[in-house]
Amino acid sequence: MADILPLRRNPPTDTMARLRAQFSEEMAAVEILMRENMGSYVDMIPAIGEHIVKAGGKRLRPILTLAGARLCNYSGEAQISLAAAVEYMHTATLLHDDVVDESDLRRSLPTARKVWGNAASVLVGDFMLGQAFRMMVAAGSLKALDILSHAAAVIAEGEVMQLANLHNVDMTEDAYLQVVDAKTATLFAAAAEVGGVIAEANLRELDGIRSYGRNLGIAFQLVDDALDYASHSETLGKNIGDDFREGKITLPILLAVRRGSEADRGFWNRVVRTPSDDPTDFQHALKLMHETKALEETRERARHYGARAVDALALFPSSPLKSELIDLVQFCIARAY
Amino acid sequence: MADILPLRRNPPTDTMARLRAQFSEEMAAVEILMRENMGSYVDMIPAIGEHIVKAGGKRLRPILTLAGARLCNYSGEAQISLAAAVEYMHTATLLHDDVVDESDLRRSLPTARKVWGNAASVLVGDFMLGQAFRMMVAAGSLKALDILSHAAAVIAEGEVMQLANLHNVDMTEDAYLQVVDAKTATLFAAAAEVGGVIAEANLRELDGIRSYGRNLGIAFQLVDDALDYASHSETLGKNIGDDFREGKITLPILLAVRRGSEADRGFWNRVVRTPSDDPTDFQHALKLMHETKALEETRERARHYGARAVDALALFPSSPLKSELIDLVQFCIARAY
Repeated sequence: MADILPLRRNPPTDTMARLRAQFSEEMAAVEILMRENMGSYVDMIPAIGEHIVKAGGKRLRPILTLAGARLCNYSGEAQISLAAAVEYMHTATLLHDDVVDESDLRRSLPTARKVWGNAASVLVGDFMLGQAFRMMVAAGSLKALDILSHAAAVIAEGEVMQLANLHNVDMTEDAYLQVVDAKTATLFAAAAEVGGVIAEANLRELDGIRSYGRNLGIAFQLVDDALDYASHSETLGKNIGDDFREGKITLPILLAVRRGSEADRGFWNRVVRTPSDDPTDFQHALKLMHETKALEETRERARHYGARAVDALALFPSSPLKSELIDLVQFCIARAY
Repeated sequence: MADILPLRRNPPTDTMARLRAQFSEEMAAVEILMRENMGSYVDMIPAIGEHIVKAGGKRLRPILTLAGARLCNYSGEAQISLAAAVEYMHTATLLHDDVVDESDLRRSLPTARKVWGNAASVLVGDFMLGQAFRMMVAAGSLKALDILSHAAAVIAEGEVMQLANLHNVDMTEDAYLQVVDAKTATLFAAAAEVGGVIAEANLRELDGIRSYGRNLGIAFQLVDDALDYASHSETLGKNIGDDFREGKITLPILLAVRRGSEADRGFWNRVVRTPSDDPTDFQHALKLMHETKALEETRERARHYGARAVDALALFPSSPLKSELIDLVQFCIARAY
């Protein structure tokens, strides 16, 4: 199925830049709204907000909302507050995840919980979730609210399921995909769908953009899982990946376990139960993943979902935006960061 | 102002029973909805839900929603899902508070975080918040959603403010009341108001029930603060109150500090900075509170807000329900649990 994906017409790093350029005015409005909603008489809130919103990332989810609205020919302005709400939901999740995972670092930067403590991270996450719902209400669509509040519950449910399988290297791939679907893909799907909802898109269109978002989200997460190991291969494993340091089970581990020997299973069991910050362990993990082709296969799985995302857009007529959304899939799969 | 409160016509313990009887059918529907919304394919969620929903408490907030709706002559059914949503918001807050406060006990029972850990408590709190918003959406009122999402943000903001003043015995009473207003009274106010909102009450009525809820909430929290010390006087301070064991600053401490000597301030500073589980320390705290009449004065402050709550109902015509809402104020102030 992978060859359904078009040949890469542009270097993947350009894809995000071109998408952002398409939505530059709207994204500027989203950023302003996001900054405004971190305002508070309690100083700690804007401080943490700045730390985490600035750290920023790709703003993939709000762009999906803007893209969903434009793809369905929306002409109003409710997409701005929905896009900001979606990114707030994502950010609140990051704040809580760091507490749940006891993470000190996120992309080589200290986490909010490391700087301000667990308590502040939990509460500021709650604050952002509350503000997210206020922005959704401002958008005025009960249907969009229904989709996003449902997503909020499903995301948390997925995280609890992940927690319940914390040290379980025998977790099935199906169960792992269920976690990925819930904790990551649900918000991608909802982000895209609510853009169509305010545009009063028809059911087929809504199904199409929701399916695009969902499959893109699964692909994105699987590539993320692979990158947490692959990006450290170049440094010969001297810097240990976040997932490994936290003993987090992701698809590369599940595949390496399945394809490895009994002795390997012993190794994986140990580093998952007692997370290791020993570079030798990490290097051994990379070696086992290399031998079992666990990372290549994780990316291959991602490609499968990427192809499904592209197919989901079939019903929309050709347009520059549609092409860029297809490129976005390619970018998410080929990305190195 | 305290004599504005009517003479007690019934023993306070009967008040809640009579209120519950007024709303027995509706509350049964609320309980069913609450149980249904804890359902999940992830076993840990209903388990924690049962633990915390069963531990239950007084269900004051959902009763306020039902009462607000009935007082404004509502005849629909949206009050059920709003009432359940309000109690879910409250419960999610409790789950997160226990993590924030690192509490192991709540009313002599182990907290969810003690049984299932911090991570599960954070995530199940998030799940409940998501489900709360779904129930609000089901009620179908954007205005009620606006009020409750605003409340969610304000509650978190109040908790962050409390966190920022964690070890500060010089916190002003005004600042402390601002925290109480945000973290407790906001949800009481919103709970009552949304009942009126779905009944399409006029502005004066909405102001009235919101003000009733808010002032009742402040009174309730101040009495809670006093009880956390007073209820242990009978056991001669052998069982240490939760607030003291956690070094939490509440009005009784702020008043005892203000009215005490420099030596006392040293004592309070110590037990607030390094929470003590030494019964001798707790007994000394009770002694200082006795000398400064800190607990009586805290209850007196509560009475003031109780009187304002009663006055806020003045615009509503006499009715058995109105009388019981007035009794509820009395109950909240006189209660010993």
